[in-house]
Amino acid sequence: MSFRIEHDTMGEVQVPADKYWGAQTERSRNNFKIGPEGSMPKEIIHAFGYLKKAAAQANTELGVLSAEKAELIAKACDEIIAGQLDDQFPLVIWQTGSGTQSNMNGNEVIANRAHVINGGQLADDKKILHPNDDVNKSQSSNDTYPTAMHIAAYKLTVENTIPGLEKLRNTLAQKVAEFANITKTGRTHFMDATPLTLGQEFSGYVQQIDNSIRAIKNALVMVAELALGGTAVGTGLNTPKGYDVLVAKKIADLTGLPFVTAPNKFEALAAHDAMVELSGALKRTAVALMKVANDIRMLSSGPRCGIGEIVIPDNEPGSSIMPGKVNPTQPEALTMVCAQVMGNDVAVSIGGATGHFELNVFKPLIAANVLQSARLIGDACVSFNDKCAEGITANLPEIEKHLQNSLMLVTALNPHVGYENAAKIAKKAHKENKTLKVAAVELGLLTNEQFDEWVRPEDMVGSLK
Amino acid sequence: MSFRIEHDTMGEVQVPADKYWGAQTERSRNNFKIGPEGSMPKEIIHAFGYLKKAAAQANTELGVLSAEKAELIAKACDEIIAGQLDDQFPLVIWQTGSGTQSNMNGNEVIANRAHVINGGQLADDKKILHPNDDVNKSQSSNDTYPTAMHIAAYKLTVENTIPGLEKLRNTLAQKVAEFANITKTGRTHFMDATPLTLGQEFSGYVQQIDNSIRAIKNALVMVAELALGGTAVGTGLNTPKGYDVLVAKKIADLTGLPFVTAPNKFEALAAHDAMVELSGALKRTAVALMKVANDIRMLSSGPRCGIGEIVIPDNEPGSSIMPGKVNPTQPEALTMVCAQVMGNDVAVSIGGATGHFELNVFKPLIAANVLQSARLIGDACVSFNDKCAEGITANLPEIEKHLQNSLMLVTALNPHVGYENAAKIAKKAHKENKTLKVAAVELGLLTNEQFDEWVRPEDMVGSLK
Amino acid sequence: MSFRIEHDTMGEVQVPADKYWGAQTERSRNNFKIGPEGSMPKEIIHAFGYLKKAAAQANTELGVLSAEKAELIAKACDEIIAGQLDDQFPLVIWQTGSGTQSNMNGNEVIANRAHVINGGQLADDKKILHPNDDVNKSQSSNDTYPTAMHIAAYKLTVENTIPGLEKLRNTLAQKVAEFANITKTGRTHFMDATPLTLGQEFSGYVQQIDNSIRAIKNALVMVAELALGGTAVGTGLNTPKGYDVLVAKKIADLTGLPFVTAPNKFEALAAHDAMVELSGALKRTAVALMKVANDIRMLSSGPRCGIGEIVIPDNEPGSSIMPGKVNPTQPEALTMVCAQVMGNDVAVSIGGATGHFELNVFKPLIAANVLQSARLIGDACVSFNDKCAEGITANLPEIEKHLQNSLMLVTALNPHVGYENAAKIAKKAHKENKTLKVAAVELGLLTNEQFDEWVRPEDMVGSLK
Amino acid sequence: MSFRIEHDTMGEVQVPADKYWGAQTERSRNNFKIGPEGSMPKEIIHAFGYLKKAAAQANTELGVLSAEKAELIAKACDEIIAGQLDDQFPLVIWQTGSGTQSNMNGNEVIANRAHVINGGQLADDKKILHPNDDVNKSQSSNDTYPTAMHIAAYKLTVENTIPGLEKLRNTLAQKVAEFANITKTGRTHFMDATPLTLGQEFSGYVQQIDNSIRAIKNALVMVAELALGGTAVGTGLNTPKGYDVLVAKKIADLTGLPFVTAPNKFEALAAHDAMVELSGALKRTAVALMKVANDIRMLSSGPRCGIGEIVIPDNEPGSSIMPGKVNPTQPEALTMVCAQVMGNDVAVSIGGATGHFELNVFKPLIAANVLQSARLIGDACVSFNDKCAEGITANLPEIEKHLQNSLMLVTALNPHVGYENAAKIAKKAHKENKTLKVAAVELGLLTNEQFDEWVRPEDMVGSLK
Repeated sequence: MSFRIEHDTMGEVQVPADKYWGAQTERSRNNFKIGPEGSMPKEIIHAFGYLKKAAAQANTELGVLSAEKAELIAKACDEIIAGQLDDQFPLVIWQTGSGTQSNMNGNEVIANRAHVINGGQLADDKKILHPNDDVNKSQSSNDTYPTAMHIAAYKLTVENTIPGLEKLRNTLAQKVAEFANITKTGRTHFMDATPLTLGQEFSGYVQQIDNSIRAIKNALVMVAELALGGTAVGTGLNTPKGYDVLVAKKIADLTGLPFVTAPNKFEALAAHDAMVELSGALKRTAVALMKVANDIRMLSSGPRCGIGEIVIPDNEPGSSIMPGKVNPTQPEALTMVCAQVMGNDVAVSIGGATGHFELNVFKPLIAANVLQSARLIGDACVSFNDKCAEGITANLPEIEKHLQNSLMLVTALNPHVGYENAAKIAKKAHKENKTLKVAAVELGLLTNEQFDEWVRPEDMVGSLK
Repeated sequence: MSFRIEHDTMGEVQVPADKYWGAQTERSRNNFKIGPEGSMPKEIIHAFGYLKKAAAQANTELGVLSAEKAELIAKACDEIIAGQLDDQFPLVIWQTGSGTQSNMNGNEVIANRAHVINGGQLADDKKILHPNDDVNKSQSSNDTYPTAMHIAAYKLTVENTIPGLEKLRNTLAQKVAEFANITKTGRTHFMDATPLTLGQEFSGYVQQIDNSIRAIKNALVMVAELALGGTAVGTGLNTPKGYDVLVAKKIADLTGLPFVTAPNKFEALAAHDAMVELSGALKRTAVALMKVANDIRMLSSGPRCGIGEIVIPDNEPGSSIMPGKVNPTQPEALTMVCAQVMGNDVAVSIGGATGHFELNVFKPLIAANVLQSARLIGDACVSFNDKCAEGITANLPEIEKHLQNSLMLVTALNPHVGYENAAKIAKKAHKENKTLKVAAVELGLLTNEQFDEWVRPEDMVGSLK
Repeated sequence: MSFRIEHDTMGEVQVPADKYWGAQTERSRNNFKIGPEGSMPKEIIHAFGYLKKAAAQANTELGVLSAEKAELIAKACDEIIAGQLDDQFPLVIWQTGSGTQSNMNGNEVIANRAHVINGGQLADDKKILHPNDDVNKSQSSNDTYPTAMHIAAYKLTVENTIPGLEKLRNTLAQKVAEFANITKTGRTHFMDATPLTLGQEFSGYVQQIDNSIRAIKNALVMVAELALGGTAVGTGLNTPKGYDVLVAKKIADLTGLPFVTAPNKFEALAAHDAMVELSGALKRTAVALMKVANDIRMLSSGPRCGIGEIVIPDNEPGSSIMPGKVNPTQPEALTMVCAQVMGNDVAVSIGGATGHFELNVFKPLIAANVLQSARLIGDACVSFNDKCAEGITANLPEIEKHLQNSLMLVTALNPHVGYENAAKIAKKAHKENKTLKVAAVELGLLTNEQFDEWVRPEDMVGSLK
Repeated sequence: MSFRIEHDTMGEVQVPADKYWGAQTERSRNNFKIGPEGSMPKEIIHAFGYLKKAAAQANTELGVLSAEKAELIAKACDEIIAGQLDDQFPLVIWQTGSGTQSNMNGNEVIANRAHVINGGQLADDKKILHPNDDVNKSQSSNDTYPTAMHIAAYKLTVENTIPGLEKLRNTLAQKVAEFANITKTGRTHFMDATPLTLGQEFSGYVQQIDNSIRAIKNALVMVAELALGGTAVGTGLNTPKGYDVLVAKKIADLTGLPFVTAPNKFEALAAHDAMVELSGALKRTAVALMKVANDIRMLSSGPRCGIGEIVIPDNEPGSSIMPGKVNPTQPEALTMVCAQVMGNDVAVSIGGATGHFELNVFKPLIAANVLQSARLIGDACVSFNDKCAEGITANLPEIEKHLQNSLMLVTALNPHVGYENAAKIAKKAHKENKTLKVAAVELGLLTNEQFDEWVRPEDMVGSLK
């Protein structure tokens, strides 16, 4: 491999000759060989594209950067946003906790790429842009990295997480309608209980997802607040007047998302409560999805020795040894994702709680975990929707068999014979393996006709239908 | 001890003669000897007082319970709400996951206490009220226990948690004003950084608490939704028409809190996402408070070998062996509380994720953890406020010494000499143990006068003050 | 209430006249009103009884405390150990993170109680013992509190947790034998799979508990190491030569448990990795028990619409609205306990990770959570054992029905017809709702006789039986 | 792209023409588009290489597979082990919870690669090996995937995690010797305390790491137990007699690691307590490392406004805006890793607790998190060691300044003047900003000479040195 010499304030560094990054990126590559190379999330890299372009534009508008330089920066940033320079970002999550090195990676790549766009050579001694004085102007890693976190998280959440949840929610809502008139046995404590419709059962899932989306949207309100303009410690040192408001507006314009400047920059650098809150909302969503996926898994269990009240699509052979086996693989993937999101939330919380003074230095950890959670939930919802939820059908014979057998239909008799007599009927039927009707009549508590009039499963699902 | 005989649908049970509880409570006492007796939170017991009274009133209004019975139930409930019957609730958290036994504990105590209020004897064979048919009318444990959870959690949060947070927030806001003109060194990465004011530093804490309160209030919206009216599986079986809306209104009237009936009763029984969400908001608050308390702890460190920029009150001797030692004991208590709340949130999430079909059976676990978190945060904020935050003063000599020494004042030179030259100055000053001014002038980068004009800490804190 | 005046190095304090505690305890009572009074675990209080007695004896033996004083201290300690002075310990968990105030509570109660035992009055101006100079001699809170943590945790674990686990383990092992010849359908992915015996299924549970006990015992090795002798920062300042080894031996003698002095006192004060490790072992046990309890819950589901292959005892009416309902309440209590232990482990880990320099100041948090986990697991195992596991019986008709129906018996044909042909058989049987034998013969892959010879469930469970 | 047609029991599938994988892999690729492609850890893939080779050898030795076929399988496996076929494993973590699809990916790649090695073409209709009947012979995903988990986790732990920990431990042990005679102020509660040596302080870190390694080794004992031979549900169906013991021995031989067959295959498939336990040991290690890294971070704080008692290497410019800034970036990376490991442990625990009946279906989740934790700890320890710990030096002037100033030297006076008088001295010195000696003499409690004799920091560190 051939190299060129780059330098920073600590001296000279050999950098691969064909790479756009510079001295500081190369130092970080060598200093942090932790986990696979290039693990810093691509969403963060692309977010830096937006923010560096916006900062350049704001700087120009406020008279501290030439229009020519801003234009060059913007061109390089457009390539970053488009993903064309992804391979120029080799750094890992497990670097400095401020993300400074990824900020500098961005600054260096932009400065060098702009130089080349401008007709220069990577090996030129003198470049048209300085990574710190130009590309990083009016910025500090301390406000850029959290800004990139917010841009990346907001974008991914509204482009992937929420649409995925909505897609699944809508499919389930369709099932509510489709299953509206299928009365089935309920189960509480995993034991037979009074009946409800299959549609009612699914309506609970819809409500859970609706509430999850609402919680995520609540959390996004604070993620929309950007730290940019706070620079080193939150005071805005070395920024022109009006810069923080303007640069947030620029980012909002570039992304089409409702970003605003954070009301308190000290909080925005020193804490990442907004990300912790978003992680919490994603965790709460995972808790909800875990319940839904477990229900689907269990309701479809069988085919002959389980509960088997619904049928889910066969997507692949289920076993390498048991021929013909079909498994609820989509619910499995989804519940694994949910467990991951619940674990990620703990990592994020610990990172969020461990900031000191003017800076939280668990930024890349927090970013990586929140982004993974947001990505996984969105992707898994789509997968679960397309390959499982859409194809769910009711297994009517099993449903009917269970419904007719359930001893808990006896509950309908409470208002007629009282709780204690009703219990006698159920216990007798259970013990003697009889139907409720036979047991009830044998106990002399009612007639066959009364039983038929009072115990009608389809009437027991009604008052809140 | 003397006993009386009580019975339920499984047969007879010996109950302590002087206790109001009945057969099912006694069974549970004997069946669940896990942890200390009576651990079911008192807030839940009192919440049952509100809901049983409200249910009786709604039942009467809808024509399914006599006014006389409702009146008796209400009288017994008033005693429960007032805490006068706390010793009649001996059951533990670690019982059936539906909380059925605590619901029955309430039903039995109310039925028996009402009988005695009505002039009867505990030993009477025939009682005026039946625990199931009267006290539990139009109810199931499956909708009462979650309703009690929501009442208890909402009440505790608005009466204890939020006021505690607001008290602390207001004290800190007062410090922001008090410390507005004290310029001090900033610290990022736990290392010296550019200056800010002590008031700005504290303003971050205020913002963190403001955001925490907002997050808690967001979560309360869903906690205000009550399951009552769903009965066994969410269908509202055995309830009169209009009951769910009416009973929620009754509870709102009795508590003065904005309770409404849940839009989907299936979700309200089968999942406890509202409680998971509240727990998440409390956890997010704990994350914020951990940062604040750690900062106070560290800023006050010393008295002679630490950072020592603030002074906190001496409340007690700090050491059993080191005479005269004073420690940041309130921050310690608060950070322990924060760690507990973060752990509780995991327990709540696991419980919340593990519901099946029509019922989540981790209800008492969820209730106990959320209530503990809410209580601890509220109490600890008040304690921290009264015994620590209110008494915080600035240690001006230390602050001034640090400020003047900080090499990071060099950042003010970036716009004048560029990042790389500024770095040279800082490095030279550090290496040769000189002041920035001396180093800068020795390097020939500026004059003494320029340094004095450009490097003014009080001007470096300004643009976002 | 009447008071007396006590004093400490900060001045005078009013203390309830009839209480043995002194000034520092009273200060803490007033300074930390967080959660219910007296929440510091009683196991910690009693452990202080052992350690203060042992320290007095060691001090006397090493010539720094008079035998008379040591004798008086021992008498008061014996009362603490016996639980007779529990009401003299009003402090909460949420105090100083070193537990200093509970150490002083012990010192003060012992000094005052000893004075009274010696014939003095609580109101006497001059007492025979000084809480710091005598009772706390050769000690610091920094080494006593962690020592008390270890004594309490070790004792509770070997007296409650492990015996509870062993009791349950032995019952399940008995079921392994009892169910050795009951062949049943297996289930993987919650779906029908190849057969195994019910005994084999239960043998997995036994192995899980055996491994859990082993893990707990591994963790106890480090819990047996005591910090005592390290005093303030681990150097052993103000202790006589040989004290650390001797005092650990005294504690071992008094408790009958294998305590030794910690090899490195700096670690023993500054970190609580031993407790973190024990908490981790308890968490790992909770993970195992969660699986076992869930299986029991699900295997016993029904009675008519579930899996229903085992029957568990009916201990109480299961529902306040559904007459005759029986629920798996013991598994529910156990799984709630497991979720709590998993949450506690997070709290302990955060506390354990957040020590600084020479002292971890999350001690009471760590102690309280580990002790609760140890208590709950032990108690819940006994409850689950006595009220559920012992009474488990096989539901042979259901087991047989499922076994005969299972399509996964087809796996026995792999070696004879190959995986792909076997799959054809299973799929045909499933699709056409036929038996495997009919499908196989219809496909012309084998004869009725071959099927009967090759597909014998009782032969399919064998090679590892 | 060009395709070829592959088939499985569900029918035909188009597969990229040049890839070795087959129909089932391709189905999974299409069915699980969750997160980045190919996320299944490479360590798992390579472990499959070992186990498939070992299984083939055992099958041959036990007479159920031809030597020729076993030889071909072994050749393909060797390529997998060498990492030469990494790009043939495109599947994700978030697939079926049994990992069946990755097992089949292995089977298919081996079968097809072997066919090509044998001179065949990928497009051939008939292949020399069948993925199920040959490559998967005597196996099920249910026992292969957990076996691969154990092989991968054991290998990575002993090759990366433990060596990384040992490297850091040895460096720190060297510092213990190097710093043995540097007496410095201690700090408890983040406040000044009695002195110790810098070597003693570091000795606590060494002890923490030693204990962590011991805990990891304890956990590995169970990870050495392999599920292979249990096949579908743990019974060993379709395996030749003696196979389980033999195949474990083969794996031990191939890897040079002490693998044995698991004593209970039902537990080994249905639970992953061994992995949960290893995760717990890694988490406990993370808790320890968090403390160590935080101490280093804080001890090196400054350079002028912090604690500054040690100096750590400057590896890179610390700030994009503050020139000359140096930050504790290695401690930051390490503490982020620790937070991640703590979060991963929660994910693993939830996955481990959620198995049902004969199979835990959170296998890939568990594997991925444990492997990430093991990798990150090992890598981060090496990075922290090489770039930080090795270069730590003592900042003697700061250490001496703090030591002489510390009021807690007064503790040495306890045995001479009593705790209360010593407190008076410290308080007077603090209040009047005097030295302890001046305060002591002014109080008339001792003479200058006595002070000099009694208060000698270097004597206060001694008894446990």
